[in-house]
Amino acid sequence: MTLTPDFPSPDDWSHPDVPMTPPQAGWLSQTDLTIARSQLPIVYVDAVPVRTDDSGDVIAVGLLLRMGDHGLTRSLVSGRVLYHERIRDALVRHIEKDLGPVALPQIPTSPQPFTVAEYFPMPGITPYHDNRQHAVSLAYVVPVTGDCQPSQDALNFDWLTPEEACSEGVQAAFVGGQGALVKQAMAWVGRLL
Amino acid sequence: MTLTPDFPSPDDWSHPDVPMTPPQAGWLSQTDLTIARSQLPIVYVDAVPVRTDDSGDVIAVGLLLRMGDHGLTRSLVSGRVLYHERIRDALVRHIEKDLGPVALPQIPTSPQPFTVAEYFPMPGITPYHDNRQHAVSLAYVVPVTGDCQPSQDALNFDWLTPEEACSEGVQAAFVGGQGALVKQAMAWVGRLL
Amino acid sequence: MTLTPDFPSPDDWSHPDVPMTPPQAGWLSQTDLTIARSQLPIVYVDAVPVRTDDSGDVIAVGLLLRMGDHGLTRSLVSGRVLYHERIRDALVRHIEKDLGPVALPQIPTSPQPFTVAEYFPMPGITPYHDNRQHAVSLAYVVPVTGDCQPSQDALNFDWLTPEEACSEGVQAAFVGGQGALVKQAMAWVGRLL
Amino acid sequence: MTLTPDFPSPDDWSHPDVPMTPPQAGWLSQTDLTIARSQLPIVYVDAVPVRTDDSGDVIAVGLLLRMGDHGLTRSLVSGRVLYHERIRDALVRHIEKDLGPVALPQIPTSPQPFTVAEYFPMPGITPYHDNRQHAVSLAYVVPVTGDCQPSQDALNFDWLTPEEACSEGVQAAFVGGQGALVKQAMAWVGRLL
Repeated sequence: MTLTPDFPSPDDWSHPDVPMTPPQAGWLSQTDLTIARSQLPIVYVDAVPVRTDDSGDVIAVGLLLRMGDHGLTRSLVSGRVLYHERIRDALVRHIEKDLGPVALPQIPTSPQPFTVAEYFPMPGITPYHDNRQHAVSLAYVVPVTGDCQPSQDALNFDWLTPEEACSEGVQAAFVGGQGALVKQAMAWVGRLL
Repeated sequence: MTLTPDFPSPDDWSHPDVPMTPPQAGWLSQTDLTIARSQLPIVYVDAVPVRTDDSGDVIAVGLLLRMGDHGLTRSLVSGRVLYHERIRDALVRHIEKDLGPVALPQIPTSPQPFTVAEYFPMPGITPYHDNRQHAVSLAYVVPVTGDCQPSQDALNFDWLTPEEACSEGVQAAFVGGQGALVKQAMAWVGRLL
Repeated sequence: MTLTPDFPSPDDWSHPDVPMTPPQAGWLSQTDLTIARSQLPIVYVDAVPVRTDDSGDVIAVGLLLRMGDHGLTRSLVSGRVLYHERIRDALVRHIEKDLGPVALPQIPTSPQPFTVAEYFPMPGITPYHDNRQHAVSLAYVVPVTGDCQPSQDALNFDWLTPEEACSEGVQAAFVGGQGALVKQAMAWVGRLL
Repeated sequence: MTLTPDFPSPDDWSHPDVPMTPPQAGWLSQTDLTIARSQLPIVYVDAVPVRTDDSGDVIAVGLLLRMGDHGLTRSLVSGRVLYHERIRDALVRHIEKDLGPVALPQIPTSPQPFTVAEYFPMPGITPYHDNRQHAVSLAYVVPVTGDCQPSQDALNFDWLTPEEACSEGVQAAFVGGQGALVKQAMAWVGRLL
């Protein structure tokens, strides 16, 4: 496996707007990965970071702000599950990568996701799409109690009320259907109006 | 509504073995409650307290130990939902009542329970029964991170591994089918073998 | 227990706009029920009737049309769980009562509801309210494959697309927050846009 | 893409004991697939076929019987999700492949699985393992109402009661942890004792 620094990393498939960096040793080479991406569904996780009050009621949703090809975009914490990695460990890793080491996430006890988002390369089959690949993403609401610092590929990380996150203005800033995923998450926690 | 201190309290219906104390003012009188209990299903919550590791994996289940009519019994945190009370507030209240004020529970963000346990006055209809009433109980797994002190009506509160909690010996110490509920909880978090 | 034909029946608490008729013998008397309704949360079920295609995808949502105090209203299949009645039997009974004997519902295998709707007598605590009572309603999506005939207290029963059912016009015709419940159901089946 | 008939087919990864046949044109070549299987988690579905009564209660679980390397084995309906294939279409396809064209499955309305089974190449990380690959399998309970005919790679298809399916004897006939998955399914539908 020979990789140049210009090649995208499988670990950094967290979002279409994330600049690519070389992969960790031992994982799929870029050539192999490119082949796989064009022929196999890829396992993903989506985390909806939330703040809750003492009774577990969601009071805020955390959204990343990124500079994409077509302007500023909002996104969830999202990324690939690696070979030999448990889903819960993938959630920990992607939250730490996107929100920093002291976000203190409360990873769900059950592997049962609130939904499964199927991102197809072609839009219209489901509410989700991703022109790079077919991703099958297990989606979880994850309370975080610590301090969140967006990683360097994001411009900002903001806490919005459930109502703001579901508003037309914010919804328009998502790509690939992640706005619908936020609305599904808010429906599941009982905060969709 | 006239109540004497000897009358059982609707708030303390947490478990058959809990000694009864006078109710809070403003709630159902004992006479009315006795009528209701014989003619209406009663809304309950069951909480399965757990310890988790940093990736959300359940490493221990918390069980109360009580002295019942027929010897020592194991039980979950369980109790009635009051009029005008949200489910999540009932969870907070019963956990504080049974595990003390510094248990620091992480109440689930979603009202979707992992199961609904239907306790019938007659055994055999479902795995659950309660000879006092027909209770419909919404069951949740609740991670607690703080210090747990059993309330005075319990002899002890112990952390068991999922395997121990599902073992025959411990299962035999539950009444009313709560052992089955523990197994369902462990199945849901992926820890049933 | 003495009942006059003018007294409302506990069995017919399916919807605020349903005319009341005498209860079945053996259930709660009206006086007792009135007391209970003012002091205890009442166990309910809400069913969202749907048509699906062969792959389980929801293609239509079934909504009742009723004449209420303030004009035409849309509603789900909804009603009380009786003493000694299983949740799944209450679903069967209310679907048969509202949609007729040949609706052929596919009752869910699991008691896990997609959400729990807490209807409070006072609006604003949750998205749901019911000025008659505090109802805790277990909500299920129920595919029906047969012919649906609205019962005589409903004017009509119509199949709408998920998009129509979530549209502003239709949403405005619901009372008590059942429009939000339809949106939650559509979010859960992956049909909320 | 050149394939010889001796090469295993990606479509037939339904079970370790299934004899391999050439893949459909257009999918991943065997070489590419072998690489992918050794470096990426593969998306799977597991279906637990059940018979229900009119109220949705599970009365029987359907299990395949196969001749494996180490004797007779029991298995669920299980298989890979293909590129560009929706989860619900993969469920339809694998059920038709394993149970025949007139099984008449009721595919779930929601993509929310009852659990996610993570099959690792190494045993002990989760209750599931598969020495061929790392599979992330979305697990669903699927009522089937029609006639089930096991495909030619299976010896038989039998309906067992939930109690039989969870009994020690039957559990010992599963490989890779699918027995635990059956128990989780029965716990989720309320039929685990």
